[in-house]
Amino acid sequence: MPVETVDRTLAELEAETAWVGSEIDALFERLLVSREDGRDALFAAMRHAAVGGGKRLRPLLTVAAARLFGIDRGRALRAGAAIEAIHVYSLIHDDLPCMDDDDVRRGKPTVHKAFGEAAAVLAGDSLHALAFQILADPDTHEDPFVRADLVLELARASGPSGMAGGQMMDLVAEGQSLDLSAITRLQQLKTGALIEYAVEVPCIMARLPVEARTPYRGYARNIGLAFQIADDLIDHAGDARTAGKRTRKDAKAGKATFVSVLGPDRAKQQARVLVSQAIEHLTDHGSEADLLRALARFAIERNH
Amino acid sequence: MPVETVDRTLAELEAETAWVGSEIDALFERLLVSREDGRDALFAAMRHAAVGGGKRLRPLLTVAAARLFGIDRGRALRAGAAIEAIHVYSLIHDDLPCMDDDDVRRGKPTVHKAFGEAAAVLAGDSLHALAFQILADPDTHEDPFVRADLVLELARASGPSGMAGGQMMDLVAEGQSLDLSAITRLQQLKTGALIEYAVEVPCIMARLPVEARTPYRGYARNIGLAFQIADDLIDHAGDARTAGKRTRKDAKAGKATFVSVLGPDRAKQQARVLVSQAIEHLTDHGSEADLLRALARFAIERNH
Repeated sequence: MPVETVDRTLAELEAETAWVGSEIDALFERLLVSREDGRDALFAAMRHAAVGGGKRLRPLLTVAAARLFGIDRGRALRAGAAIEAIHVYSLIHDDLPCMDDDDVRRGKPTVHKAFGEAAAVLAGDSLHALAFQILADPDTHEDPFVRADLVLELARASGPSGMAGGQMMDLVAEGQSLDLSAITRLQQLKTGALIEYAVEVPCIMARLPVEARTPYRGYARNIGLAFQIADDLIDHAGDARTAGKRTRKDAKAGKATFVSVLGPDRAKQQARVLVSQAIEHLTDHGSEADLLRALARFAIERNH
Repeated sequence: MPVETVDRTLAELEAETAWVGSEIDALFERLLVSREDGRDALFAAMRHAAVGGGKRLRPLLTVAAARLFGIDRGRALRAGAAIEAIHVYSLIHDDLPCMDDDDVRRGKPTVHKAFGEAAAVLAGDSLHALAFQILADPDTHEDPFVRADLVLELARASGPSGMAGGQMMDLVAEGQSLDLSAITRLQQLKTGALIEYAVEVPCIMARLPVEARTPYRGYARNIGLAFQIADDLIDHAGDARTAGKRTRKDAKAGKATFVSVLGPDRAKQQARVLVSQAIEHLTDHGSEADLLRALARFAIERNH
């Protein structure tokens, strides 16, 4: 790609990141208005976790992939907000003392630190339900078949066959020496399934037959793993201030990661290979896929 | 109602209760097969909580209400299983040490006692996702509009505007002296919203316009409150062995309940009034509503 195209795409990625961030914040602010009837702390806890933080990688992927099929970005954004709600609920529950026991997330106190454990459990549960409410709402898509399909695939990606299943594998794996294929399988469920879903959303909205979704799934699978390796490298490098969360957790918890198995240099190399492979899945597309290509490169160049 | 009709209806209620119980168990057993990849404990924890216990009031209501509109009971059963999955996830999270801290549920150790707290959080989250997966599956209904609507209304009934919101109100209310209207509002969210949804499911499946659902909502609202009063009376009477869970919790936690505000006698009387009112909502129906009428009576005659 010529240098000026790269520059233009990077500027576009920055602009789109800013747009997605502010639109997601605005949507959550609209949906999570405090009720003065004993539920104020619940809505405050949900806003604390969901508004104004994070990379918004998942909704960004959905909005970027929507360009491939000419899907309206407002619709993609709503579905992206549902994915973000699932992601945020999983972080709230994951940070609980009985899980990872974290005090800081996205540079702020975790929800249970700020609002107590019981409120954190309920705020996570509430964001979980909200995700499905957003998807099933006619505002997200006028075709009920699309809405039902969006719900079905999100439930699969986030439940025991996806994210929650991967979190359980992660829990069981503590202190065990996993090999590369076991780590890959664990991460494909824990973080990969939801990232794959983020790219699948526009395929569902475009009513693409399942067999035509293979390249987009391939792209998502590759950048999901690249993103995880980058995360492991950030955790390994250990700058908590830049990361906005506690680092070096994996080593302390005796968790096998891509970095602990491959070492940082080979892990970095592997992430670059995965990004190239991700981009190769998009060869049938022209400039409408530039944002997805830029996102894939960003996945490994970030430091938080 | 003549005595022989009452007897026949009671026998039918017993038969239907047994059928719903065994079908729900069979469905969960089918959906929750252990995976030998680190997720065994997750699926075991989900089965521990979801299979073989509880009154199954909610799916029973759905199956009984399905008769009003000639809805296939197999479909009603599947939607009822989704409601039961939500109910069970809420019990798992509610029993956690940071919430009600309970050791026994349905006569068995609670999930966190049997599988640990982290697995209990994840088992609850997994059943939550599973509920929406069941509803969005074409096996539950062939019309995607019905499926999307079932999802939307369940998300509303179980999220911050419903069950989870009511749980938060309950948390905040501890040690406060609520009046009758505050308790009613709290219970309408905490347990009423899901019971109302159970009766609304067949209305959605029958594509009943929203304005035509009023009597069924009225029925559900009344029996939801009657059921809650009966629960409070069981907790007040305090026989943990019959109840299958810890009793006298409310008094110990300083929680205001219908019984603490009204006293047991007036509470019993109020429950009877609510049951009569529930049954009055069904006057447009003949014998196809007998099961719903019997269920309303059962709501206050049970001792567990």
